[in-house]
Amino acid sequence: MCTALAYKTKDFYFGRTLDYESSYGEEIVITPRQYPFAFRNGAKCNEHYALIGMAHVAGGYPLYYEAVNEKGLGMAGLNFVGNACYGKEKEGKDNIASFELIPWILGQCSTVKEVRELLEKINVTNLAFHESFPVSPLHWLIADEKETITVEAVEEGLFVYDNPVGVLTNNPPFPQQMFQLNNYMHLSPKQPKNLFSERLKLQTYSRGMGALGLPGDLSSASRFVRAAFTKLNAIATQKEEDSVGQFFHIMGTVEQSKGCCEVKEGAYEYTIYTSCCNASKGIYYYTTYFNHQINAVDMHEEDLDGKKVVVYPVLQEETIHYQNKTQKD
Amino acid sequence: MCTALAYKTKDFYFGRTLDYESSYGEEIVITPRQYPFAFRNGAKCNEHYALIGMAHVAGGYPLYYEAVNEKGLGMAGLNFVGNACYGKEKEGKDNIASFELIPWILGQCSTVKEVRELLEKINVTNLAFHESFPVSPLHWLIADEKETITVEAVEEGLFVYDNPVGVLTNNPPFPQQMFQLNNYMHLSPKQPKNLFSERLKLQTYSRGMGALGLPGDLSSASRFVRAAFTKLNAIATQKEEDSVGQFFHIMGTVEQSKGCCEVKEGAYEYTIYTSCCNASKGIYYYTTYFNHQINAVDMHEEDLDGKKVVVYPVLQEETIHYQNKTQKD
Amino acid sequence: MCTALAYKTKDFYFGRTLDYESSYGEEIVITPRQYPFAFRNGAKCNEHYALIGMAHVAGGYPLYYEAVNEKGLGMAGLNFVGNACYGKEKEGKDNIASFELIPWILGQCSTVKEVRELLEKINVTNLAFHESFPVSPLHWLIADEKETITVEAVEEGLFVYDNPVGVLTNNPPFPQQMFQLNNYMHLSPKQPKNLFSERLKLQTYSRGMGALGLPGDLSSASRFVRAAFTKLNAIATQKEEDSVGQFFHIMGTVEQSKGCCEVKEGAYEYTIYTSCCNASKGIYYYTTYFNHQINAVDMHEEDLDGKKVVVYPVLQEETIHYQNKTQKD
Amino acid sequence: MCTALAYKTKDFYFGRTLDYESSYGEEIVITPRQYPFAFRNGAKCNEHYALIGMAHVAGGYPLYYEAVNEKGLGMAGLNFVGNACYGKEKEGKDNIASFELIPWILGQCSTVKEVRELLEKINVTNLAFHESFPVSPLHWLIADEKETITVEAVEEGLFVYDNPVGVLTNNPPFPQQMFQLNNYMHLSPKQPKNLFSERLKLQTYSRGMGALGLPGDLSSASRFVRAAFTKLNAIATQKEEDSVGQFFHIMGTVEQSKGCCEVKEGAYEYTIYTSCCNASKGIYYYTTYFNHQINAVDMHEEDLDGKKVVVYPVLQEETIHYQNKTQKD
Repeated sequence: MCTALAYKTKDFYFGRTLDYESSYGEEIVITPRQYPFAFRNGAKCNEHYALIGMAHVAGGYPLYYEAVNEKGLGMAGLNFVGNACYGKEKEGKDNIASFELIPWILGQCSTVKEVRELLEKINVTNLAFHESFPVSPLHWLIADEKETITVEAVEEGLFVYDNPVGVLTNNPPFPQQMFQLNNYMHLSPKQPKNLFSERLKLQTYSRGMGALGLPGDLSSASRFVRAAFTKLNAIATQKEEDSVGQFFHIMGTVEQSKGCCEVKEGAYEYTIYTSCCNASKGIYYYTTYFNHQINAVDMHEEDLDGKKVVVYPVLQEETIHYQNKTQKD
Repeated sequence: MCTALAYKTKDFYFGRTLDYESSYGEEIVITPRQYPFAFRNGAKCNEHYALIGMAHVAGGYPLYYEAVNEKGLGMAGLNFVGNACYGKEKEGKDNIASFELIPWILGQCSTVKEVRELLEKINVTNLAFHESFPVSPLHWLIADEKETITVEAVEEGLFVYDNPVGVLTNNPPFPQQMFQLNNYMHLSPKQPKNLFSERLKLQTYSRGMGALGLPGDLSSASRFVRAAFTKLNAIATQKEEDSVGQFFHIMGTVEQSKGCCEVKEGAYEYTIYTSCCNASKGIYYYTTYFNHQINAVDMHEEDLDGKKVVVYPVLQEETIHYQNKTQKD
Repeated sequence: MCTALAYKTKDFYFGRTLDYESSYGEEIVITPRQYPFAFRNGAKCNEHYALIGMAHVAGGYPLYYEAVNEKGLGMAGLNFVGNACYGKEKEGKDNIASFELIPWILGQCSTVKEVRELLEKINVTNLAFHESFPVSPLHWLIADEKETITVEAVEEGLFVYDNPVGVLTNNPPFPQQMFQLNNYMHLSPKQPKNLFSERLKLQTYSRGMGALGLPGDLSSASRFVRAAFTKLNAIATQKEEDSVGQFFHIMGTVEQSKGCCEVKEGAYEYTIYTSCCNASKGIYYYTTYFNHQINAVDMHEEDLDGKKVVVYPVLQEETIHYQNKTQKD
Repeated sequence: MCTALAYKTKDFYFGRTLDYESSYGEEIVITPRQYPFAFRNGAKCNEHYALIGMAHVAGGYPLYYEAVNEKGLGMAGLNFVGNACYGKEKEGKDNIASFELIPWILGQCSTVKEVRELLEKINVTNLAFHESFPVSPLHWLIADEKETITVEAVEEGLFVYDNPVGVLTNNPPFPQQMFQLNNYMHLSPKQPKNLFSERLKLQTYSRGMGALGLPGDLSSASRFVRAAFTKLNAIATQKEEDSVGQFFHIMGTVEQSKGCCEVKEGAYEYTIYTSCCNASKGIYYYTTYFNHQINAVDMHEEDLDGKKVVVYPVLQEETIHYQNKTQKD
């Protein structure tokens, strides 16, 4: 499935993994301020914050998987199968189709505080982008440098949760994921102490035993715990390269290796791409399963007052740097 | 600590992570065939197989952490604190200091079969390279494309174990690591089936639940299980880039993120570098904690009949590829 | 805390452990049909089903911890700290104080089906039995031989859940306890199969490895899983002694040994008593921490048409049977 | 399989569970001092310490599963399948068949110190008691009130290990069982502290969370950890009944419930009996799966200077004490 992460050092970083067995054809997409967003409820938005993120562009429309806007607000949609519940249009509400939620929010809000206000009026509707596109059951991580929230539209209604961890994966619903962390409260980057019995001389036979009990599998519940532990204990300098690098290392702990998650005979879920956007500066970094090098697209290199989306391809080929021969063609 | 891995697709790959809180100053070192190895027991070796690997060069002498030779045989030394036991010189034996073991074996043997014969005569001695260098307590992973062995010199003697997993970490001794795998035999890349009770409708609420119980911490015992599970289930095409990439993904599951393993107040063990040598072709690939891009050094680009070691620096700076602006200087 | 269990062989059995650091002074109490129950809402009930169970009798009033009625319906209240939420009186509802819930329901209902109807009208109120008695935050297990339900009064309202497991412990709320079982679906009384890798010869080095991963600690979440696994796989003959014995064996897996759960310096929670009522026959069996022998009280030996509660003491002394000397006095 | 336990309060207690799918027909057997033990190596012993324990009596000979002698030394044999290795007779050694080991040692030694000396001369041989009796692969727990040892005859020879835990189960060999305890050193009867992250308000939602991670399954490795944790943290008064009761509670945590360990289609291993001998006083207490009451046989009620074994049957019927009716016939 997927994992999303909000991470703060000197700047604020926001990104995610996309885990699936095949790609839908995603690209790095910059939506400038005057790209005309026409919402299904009739609302038009011809002036909004500029966005950068990963999207599938369908008929010129950017269907964002995750994005950040020029104000440093980030938002990602993650699978929430069996729990997401979108409804019909309701009068007196901002009726927004689930696929429109990212532009609706990132286009208008500069902070999570503003998002909270906007969400009070929202009704997430079940409209599909196109009859040939199934509606994705999603929940969302939204963050600025000060705070992070999780938004879940379930049968009982729309819930907005404070997210002090800054991590989101998939099932179960967020409150249950948070509750589960209680079971891991004794985990630590420090070595364990012998609390078992004073009568035994137990020893730490290896470094790194303080997190014994941390789950190592690829389920969404285990990824949540692992990403939380790594992120909350991660150390990085204030340097851009170190912060970005550390972000990718944190995400590395929840990366899905090809072969370890069989979704049907011979088909394997793996981490198609990992993104880390410096939300403060509008630079979108990413790696893919087949390309370990970090690539980057800077939104501020583009004309953000334009009307058309600017698209960069995802570079999928491994870029190996040979130190002692002519670089391969 | 560290993890070593032997991995076969079309070619044979051999590599390791080096986990520690600080670097000793390692470089990629090619030792050509006529570099004169003078062993402490008086043996001289002026003609041997050429080697490539990571080493600390001290006074012109390559102290290899791990290497492969031109015949496709690989060998890595990993920490084995509290268990490694080297002795004094013994008559009638090949007395080899622990730091000489890699050149002694990789210089002379083309296969694991030949290594087994050589090991029958070996006595690993406790001599230090230099009085200022403490003797490292190590055990070794040795592999060619057909088989892998683990070599452990302990109090009871020198033991050579078949290693069907192709993984080595640190403590406890190898037989115990292998035994522990029995506790994980039910783990699978496929979804679990309900064996708990026919009377309950239990469900897989997430993909990737088949490996529930896989340990996620950084201890040597947990890394062994995790690397074994990932490696034995990993899928890669026969393409060089895919095989190399997959090797780094497998190693990614045992990478140590900075901050998650505190070894003393404010000091953290992390994965300083990860190497993957195409042992069949003599190409040494690596990444470092601070540089996600894969760098490579090809031994066959050098004069392998030389007498002096050829040294390439480890490139430590993150090399980010900017898609929409002039590459940063 | 506590664990409650519904178990069906030929007859239907219902019981619980009471785990705490000290006893409140409980007794086996039979409430005959004409004992006058006066409810706080003004309702009087002078004719009801007879009950047997464990209770603290205060001023002649039986404050039941758990009971069954003569129709074979059982009900137990278990600690639900931090989640139980009782309200004020509401018009148009059956306002029942939490301590009255067992007699209210067991006095009137002969089946769970009838309980469901009664619960539709109920409002659980926050009244204390006496100002000196704090109100216990509880949730309830209610069962007849056909079905089991869990009842939880929380902030969001009163919830009635089907309970296909027939087990209740304490926190977290029941739906979350049930969800957690998904994480154990691969556990089995049979030996595990090697799904880890066909390339390894893994072995079952012990019998009983099929449930590797079953939690062994005393937390409420772990006790739920352990009791569920044991109960759902338990085998017993139809004989009364075997069924009763097996019930106590199931409960034995969640028994709290003195010393293993320190609740404050020098104070330990332990299993004060374990009960197993043959709900079909009205026989209340129990053991205590200090008395392994099963004691029994049969409600049908009493005059069930009486007006006064009949009380039997809990026999706390270990009754050891000496085979080769005069029984100790 | 089985679990053995040495436990000291005011007196010294020694006992075990016997876990199997069927009984061999065991009885409580007192062997008086002049019962003539004729060992297979030709040694005769017509004057020895008196013993009490559980045995299968074959042709008048007590094949002890476990026993204590009148000096307070206890010894139990437990299954050690695939690891036990008995040899042929060796000159210059005390050649003792595995089935003779308990009488050989308990007949002659009054302390573990004396046992250690005797073991130096011992060679455990592979002779069967009778051609129709397969030789059981065993290892042994031997204890007096001061110290406990484990004895294992394996391929590499006979090993005598200090056993600071006072617990023995089955596979793997004892040193590995002890090593595994290191993985549980952070377990405690106290509630866990939040070491995961200062930035999260994690909570203990239940009592008893300090031992989260304690294994709950029935494998020998998990039973070892669970019995060790419970025993080392168990609290009991000095009263005989409390000590005996607590011993049975400790053993209750490793009891095998019928149905949870399927050894072949429809056949289940369960705890056939649990014994607890007050070794200081020579009183043998036991319960069986089908009889929760503690029964007892006191060796000092018999003539310990006799020549014939004294046998008491294992009372298998549940002895329920009815408080309000005539005791069942």
